[in-house]
Amino acid sequence: MKFYDPKPLGDATRDLLGQVATATLSSQLVKRGLRSTYMQTPRPLNPKAARFVGPAYTVRMVPAREDITELAFPTDPDFPQRKVIETTPPGHVAVFDCRGDTRGGIVGDILVERLRVRGVAGLCTDGAVRDSAAVAEQDFPVFCADVTAPYSMIVHQALDDQQPIACGGVTVLPGDIMVGDIEGVIVIPSPLADEVAADAADQEHLESYIFEKVGEGGSINDLYPPGEAALADYERWKKERGD
Amino acid sequence: MKFYDPKPLGDATRDLLGQVATATLSSQLVKRGLRSTYMQTPRPLNPKAARFVGPAYTVRMVPAREDITELAFPTDPDFPQRKVIETTPPGHVAVFDCRGDTRGGIVGDILVERLRVRGVAGLCTDGAVRDSAAVAEQDFPVFCADVTAPYSMIVHQALDDQQPIACGGVTVLPGDIMVGDIEGVIVIPSPLADEVAADAADQEHLESYIFEKVGEGGSINDLYPPGEAALADYERWKKERGD
Amino acid sequence: MKFYDPKPLGDATRDLLGQVATATLSSQLVKRGLRSTYMQTPRPLNPKAARFVGPAYTVRMVPAREDITELAFPTDPDFPQRKVIETTPPGHVAVFDCRGDTRGGIVGDILVERLRVRGVAGLCTDGAVRDSAAVAEQDFPVFCADVTAPYSMIVHQALDDQQPIACGGVTVLPGDIMVGDIEGVIVIPSPLADEVAADAADQEHLESYIFEKVGEGGSINDLYPPGEAALADYERWKKERGD
Amino acid sequence: MKFYDPKPLGDATRDLLGQVATATLSSQLVKRGLRSTYMQTPRPLNPKAARFVGPAYTVRMVPAREDITELAFPTDPDFPQRKVIETTPPGHVAVFDCRGDTRGGIVGDILVERLRVRGVAGLCTDGAVRDSAAVAEQDFPVFCADVTAPYSMIVHQALDDQQPIACGGVTVLPGDIMVGDIEGVIVIPSPLADEVAADAADQEHLESYIFEKVGEGGSINDLYPPGEAALADYERWKKERGD
Amino acid sequence: MKFYDPKPLGDATRDLLGQVATATLSSQLVKRGLRSTYMQTPRPLNPKAARFVGPAYTVRMVPAREDITELAFPTDPDFPQRKVIETTPPGHVAVFDCRGDTRGGIVGDILVERLRVRGVAGLCTDGAVRDSAAVAEQDFPVFCADVTAPYSMIVHQALDDQQPIACGGVTVLPGDIMVGDIEGVIVIPSPLADEVAADAADQEHLESYIFEKVGEGGSINDLYPPGEAALADYERWKKERGD
Amino acid sequence: MKFYDPKPLGDATRDLLGQVATATLSSQLVKRGLRSTYMQTPRPLNPKAARFVGPAYTVRMVPAREDITELAFPTDPDFPQRKVIETTPPGHVAVFDCRGDTRGGIVGDILVERLRVRGVAGLCTDGAVRDSAAVAEQDFPVFCADVTAPYSMIVHQALDDQQPIACGGVTVLPGDIMVGDIEGVIVIPSPLADEVAADAADQEHLESYIFEKVGEGGSINDLYPPGEAALADYERWKKERGD
Repeated sequence: MKFYDPKPLGDATRDLLGQVATATLSSQLVKRGLRSTYMQTPRPLNPKAARFVGPAYTVRMVPAREDITELAFPTDPDFPQRKVIETTPPGHVAVFDCRGDTRGGIVGDILVERLRVRGVAGLCTDGAVRDSAAVAEQDFPVFCADVTAPYSMIVHQALDDQQPIACGGVTVLPGDIMVGDIEGVIVIPSPLADEVAADAADQEHLESYIFEKVGEGGSINDLYPPGEAALADYERWKKERGD
Repeated sequence: MKFYDPKPLGDATRDLLGQVATATLSSQLVKRGLRSTYMQTPRPLNPKAARFVGPAYTVRMVPAREDITELAFPTDPDFPQRKVIETTPPGHVAVFDCRGDTRGGIVGDILVERLRVRGVAGLCTDGAVRDSAAVAEQDFPVFCADVTAPYSMIVHQALDDQQPIACGGVTVLPGDIMVGDIEGVIVIPSPLADEVAADAADQEHLESYIFEKVGEGGSINDLYPPGEAALADYERWKKERGD
Repeated sequence: MKFYDPKPLGDATRDLLGQVATATLSSQLVKRGLRSTYMQTPRPLNPKAARFVGPAYTVRMVPAREDITELAFPTDPDFPQRKVIETTPPGHVAVFDCRGDTRGGIVGDILVERLRVRGVAGLCTDGAVRDSAAVAEQDFPVFCADVTAPYSMIVHQALDDQQPIACGGVTVLPGDIMVGDIEGVIVIPSPLADEVAADAADQEHLESYIFEKVGEGGSINDLYPPGEAALADYERWKKERGD
Repeated sequence: MKFYDPKPLGDATRDLLGQVATATLSSQLVKRGLRSTYMQTPRPLNPKAARFVGPAYTVRMVPAREDITELAFPTDPDFPQRKVIETTPPGHVAVFDCRGDTRGGIVGDILVERLRVRGVAGLCTDGAVRDSAAVAEQDFPVFCADVTAPYSMIVHQALDDQQPIACGGVTVLPGDIMVGDIEGVIVIPSPLADEVAADAADQEHLESYIFEKVGEGGSINDLYPPGEAALADYERWKKERGD
Repeated sequence: MKFYDPKPLGDATRDLLGQVATATLSSQLVKRGLRSTYMQTPRPLNPKAARFVGPAYTVRMVPAREDITELAFPTDPDFPQRKVIETTPPGHVAVFDCRGDTRGGIVGDILVERLRVRGVAGLCTDGAVRDSAAVAEQDFPVFCADVTAPYSMIVHQALDDQQPIACGGVTVLPGDIMVGDIEGVIVIPSPLADEVAADAADQEHLESYIFEKVGEGGSINDLYPPGEAALADYERWKKERGD
Repeated sequence: MKFYDPKPLGDATRDLLGQVATATLSSQLVKRGLRSTYMQTPRPLNPKAARFVGPAYTVRMVPAREDITELAFPTDPDFPQRKVIETTPPGHVAVFDCRGDTRGGIVGDILVERLRVRGVAGLCTDGAVRDSAAVAEQDFPVFCADVTAPYSMIVHQALDDQQPIACGGVTVLPGDIMVGDIEGVIVIPSPLADEVAADAADQEHLESYIFEKVGEGGSINDLYPPGEAALADYERWKKERGD
């Protein structure tokens, strides 16, 4: 086991990560031997807010148990599920470990609004959210495995925050760099974020050339991966476009 | 076991229930100790007809069995799956117990059209419907767990109607008040419908105030749930808006 | 839909059905076009009481709902789940539709003892039973999908008896002939029981010959199904053994 | 087992199949005793390219295994997963057997673009595709069970093409006629395609009459299926419309 | 959320808990409003060591991730999964949260032997163990959801110990009283252990009387629950037996 | 993709593989980077015939389809599911790809008897077998995911043999070395069989020493993995025992 302090996310890398697809990021991570960093179940509720980038701020939910869980709406500001709404730093992503249980919603439109106002970058869970009709219209990226009507206390007990968690089958350490798009969520170990972002951007640039050439009738045998001729032509293409 | 005669649904309550979210109704029911009234799997096919309210008219499907089920299209008007189309009272919701089996569709566009013309309030099932491209354009709320091409007789045998059923993991008694929206379907025991509707409307009114104040930068610690100051301000806000 | 009155189970057919495997009965039913009569999930708890034969006495459980289900142990003799224990006729099989939900046990050792003393032929469910260590030692066939500690009221509400049910994916009509062995449970439509039993016994007799000959080195190409030579030898074999 | 040479798909039948719903095709196939021809899991990614018709060109993926699967992007033109992109004939449908495993995407936007340019009719899989945001905007029918970010090599090994496969629970033989719409995919044995297409078109024509009459207030008991009066009126209706 | 310091387990209560069934304990807990304390998936590997009682010593596993998980056998004594073997106190039960993932075994016969020698009371997990043929013969209660051949590092990363965990769908706090038998595992909040143990023993004593009387032909309507006459007879029965 | 000709299984390696656990073999394969070689679902039916070793002889089943599958018992000797019974070479293991579908049994007691008489080493499937009461008493290793009563033709169509297949989530090439024990089945690429067998035997020998020392009170920190002192003592121990 090799744990490490998270490396902060720089602005340039944040910008690059905001422009590339999770599919490309996955390729860059697999190339480095990391096959276990993609969460398939969380998907965006609002198609116009379907991307986020930011360091993880984690929350762990355990199963509700009648001797420790109050079924009523929690009012204590220190209750972890409430506290995270006020303490997730701006630019970070709140990540909830719900063990894949979607029967109770961890947030509704009011808590999402608070996250939005506070400048949080997004919310990601392998559980569910509620008030989803309203949430789907808020300008804030909410990624979840399903929507549901009941509140979380019927199945979940909020436990603690900023601990390592499992979410969507992937381990998330506080400070890991989270990137979400329509295909799901990628967890990038923070020490790798800079190089993965740069290489992913390069890869997508090359692929936009390949896509164009394939659209013009080129065979993938020449272009994908590009042979010598294609790579030379790509250099020419880049120059022409001034990239 | 405490069964009871269903209480008819009054117009005022029907109106209120048509304006509140299933998430709010769930909160009101859980507050009264009813945690087991929400169906997660049925979701609306037509986004423009994504809500219904009405008393349940129930139909039970059991697994097809070759000695009792004819694979051919049923023509007998007394066949329960046909009969329900002509007998569900206007304003009621036809609820089909399909044991969660979505391999055969219980209705297609023609039967849905008949329900619509007859003034039925909606259709809800934990099974599937077919002709879904057409159904998704009809002005009638159809909630189902999935869509499918084959007709129901390959997996289902219609059995009887107006008996208690299980649908989407919830027991539905004939006359229970069904409310559906984008998040799924809530079953309200009919004796509770009036008070649940009234309290849900009150709750949503208060929450629209809270949502507005959170949008203006208020902390959930002051507003959600509202403290004394917030409640006083809410009274002022209501007066200002003339509510 | 072709429903019919159940045909009573005669003693000779009961005896034959007690000697053949559900695999053989399945073959006889599939040969007659009935592919949907086998329940895979119920399996015997007590290896020494791993078979039953008898007409079905059905009970239906629906999901527990807090307004109709009392969590406490039911004391009313008319409560269906209790009533069935005293009313399932001797020689019949109590069949519980639990929708495959195994989280609450429908009977424990005391109710099983009462069924045994009353001469009931067996119990079959796609749900669970509790006190399974004790039940596994009682001289009574209990077939279930799993064992569990909590009682049924945490997930089930007993609804009615002697109605058609779904159990283990198969429709069971009251009076259907139920046969259970180590591989699961077969539901035989009562009008077919006599001929299916007779043909199954014949098939097993022939197969015992084939098994013997294969054990002596015969190829399945000659024996299974038997060609003319094998059939003639089978007649000789039967005579020799005095069958 | 009765295998047969595929019958080529004629233009007239291709046209008819492009106009009818998979629900109608399923009815025609069930009427002929074929209940097992519908795949429920593949659904279209691009709502504007949500239909395809064409003979199947099959590819089989087996689980990745470290001694035979290279994790890196495959470059060999003979690698089956690449080869199929260049060899699926125009007008055919590439069908990938992924054993329902959606963790690795079999194609992304570049390979889809190549299929489109080459005039392939569509792609269908019970697995996943990647780059789905881009693919959802390409003018090419891609039907899949889910979307995902990682590439296929983390879970799949491409094995061979033009062999019988299982996809979405249905056996697909090379040359079977594949039809996809919003409800999923139907596999039509090629020898039946002409008659099934013709009868499906007739059925839909009659149903458009029935739908219209039900919309005008007619009861399904008179119209669906149509009685003698309705059939006579349908003949009149057809004449009026000049059909 | 009401957390509390665990209450130590006294010898008398440990003895009582070792004599009653988890089914009885579940009844006592449900009677007190605790419905969510039973784990269904862990079952004993060795039928002769199929019971345990002891306070929980918890370990949490998260998904393996290539940047933090070494695939090789762990040698560091502080690695949590190793450490727990040497630090679980005698008389306690080691409880592993494996998120229900049974693909990698958390212990094999050597680690189990060490737990046995050290006087640990048992091991319980919703994951799997390996070397199960050997473990099934060791005189030590190992409860797991399945057996498997690979070691845990292919899917799990040991994270920490003595934190609250989820196991088999139930929250386990360090020091909760764990009781396992053939039906699964019950988690008793430590403050309730004494009274639940006493009442469960009383309940089983009464039920042994009821079982005997039912075996002699009594109806459950008189005996279960016992009416006044039965309760009086039970007092007589107890005296006779000298209980 | 790197396919290769299978390497025949030598007697010495066959003997070694028959003495080690699949858990040990998994460790040796993971050590070589092969994480994807273990099938979890197949388990032995007969506890006294719970091990096999042999090269794979593969059979592929696809879903039954009414135009190609005859529901009747197959009589053609060239039908793949029959042919494999007569053609699997002695000492080989028949491996059936059933796509995890356990609703139809691929063999019963007569076919198993024929395999036994012919000297086949075992049968392994991710599907089901029937006549399981009889099969569980035959002296032949049958590993399956479940038992069932109906024959295979209700869900499966036998397709071909000696092609690569997927079974229990693992790719099996004809000639791969299959080893089964109580924990499931390991697939060893044939070129690795000799070294994996030798190293597994060495590992188990060392572990038997460790197990003994742990039983005498040794700490895993000294013994597992063994430090220098332990390794020296192991050499002494081996000499003493004459190993």
